[in-house]
Amino acid sequence: MTTQTIPVGKDLLSPAKQAALELRAEFTRRGIFIVNIVSSPGAGKTSLLEATAKHWADKGKMSVLVGDLATDRDAQRLAPLAPTVQLTTGGACHLEMPLIRKGLDQLGAVDTDFLFIENIGNLVCPASHDLGEHLRVVVLSTTEGDDKPGKYPKMFRTSQVLVITKADLLPYVPFSVEAAIADARLIQPNLQAVSVCARDGCGIAEWCALLDAARNQMLAERDKNAICH
Amino acid sequence: MTTQTIPVGKDLLSPAKQAALELRAEFTRRGIFIVNIVSSPGAGKTSLLEATAKHWADKGKMSVLVGDLATDRDAQRLAPLAPTVQLTTGGACHLEMPLIRKGLDQLGAVDTDFLFIENIGNLVCPASHDLGEHLRVVVLSTTEGDDKPGKYPKMFRTSQVLVITKADLLPYVPFSVEAAIADARLIQPNLQAVSVCARDGCGIAEWCALLDAARNQMLAERDKNAICH
Repeated sequence: MTTQTIPVGKDLLSPAKQAALELRAEFTRRGIFIVNIVSSPGAGKTSLLEATAKHWADKGKMSVLVGDLATDRDAQRLAPLAPTVQLTTGGACHLEMPLIRKGLDQLGAVDTDFLFIENIGNLVCPASHDLGEHLRVVVLSTTEGDDKPGKYPKMFRTSQVLVITKADLLPYVPFSVEAAIADARLIQPNLQAVSVCARDGCGIAEWCALLDAARNQMLAERDKNAICH
Repeated sequence: MTTQTIPVGKDLLSPAKQAALELRAEFTRRGIFIVNIVSSPGAGKTSLLEATAKHWADKGKMSVLVGDLATDRDAQRLAPLAPTVQLTTGGACHLEMPLIRKGLDQLGAVDTDFLFIENIGNLVCPASHDLGEHLRVVVLSTTEGDDKPGKYPKMFRTSQVLVITKADLLPYVPFSVEAAIADARLIQPNLQAVSVCARDGCGIAEWCALLDAARNQMLAERDKNAICH
């Protein structure tokens, strides 16, 4: 029996990876920047999105897919502020592309600048799943301890931005913002970092400016590629 | 072809479940009570064990297997206080029986009343894995929000004790101890609950008394079964 090599001209990707690439390309064309927000349970993802929506009030800038194992508690908080769809995994520890697509169908044709995907509260498993995002943001609260990046390295290695939340609790907890950022940058030297307090809005303007800059860069690259090809 | 039914006289269990049953039976015989501690990252499992070891200082009551994806940071904290072995999963999101057995081999023949297994910081995946424990304890910190039990139901349903940590931060965070316990008891009506602050030792005596009572109950049941059989 002889073996024949058939050149296929491109990498063969898993269906999940292919679906993520297609979503990213589609949303790049539409000018919608996808942000995948990951963290431990209770680190403050929903509060960060509430504060973000309030900062951008009435500008129609954002929509949200929010994931949970059970309940629609997060969607109840966010729906008054931005178009929101709750994704419920029924116990699964991370979001995957088929559920994202279902959520987008349910969200309908909203015309926003940003689509936030609030992932399941889990600092491990979501690290392994590309959801088509342009930016992965890992949220770490000051109450979790500044030793966490090294202990959960894949999540920090695959993220581009670190948001440190609950800065108002710094006087009461043994947490150094500098130490946490330094620990994370041992793993991911290019990690951008911003410190916020969602309850009083401190740092939210800087966070939103970072998001706008990242989206503008995506748009500029898209338009440059359109000219080149 | 005919089909023949062979009675096996007992349930056929998966190797993991069988290994967990055997460990529990072995440690029951030895009088060592196994406590599997689960929580989100940074909820305070290691701090709770530090405070427990200090409360039981020099009584040789406890040993620890501590799990992490990477680093031996938790073992470094606990080793000065109690016999401790770090289990490193290399990225896996929960502990399983083969690693527990390896850790026990490394721990050696320590003669303690309690073996604590500090699981990976993950409020989802460890819920599905029996590690041979007599008691599963879910730790929830006051900074994570009192809405978490309903959002991570399997972890609370499979636990017998809820420890609410970081009680010293209650004045600064939107968290009701009563609401968290009530939410958890909707899922697991028999859940025992205790509130602690590991930093100042508040509630630690009550937590240790709860552990002693649970171990005594295990010993009484063991001895009663020995008489009956």
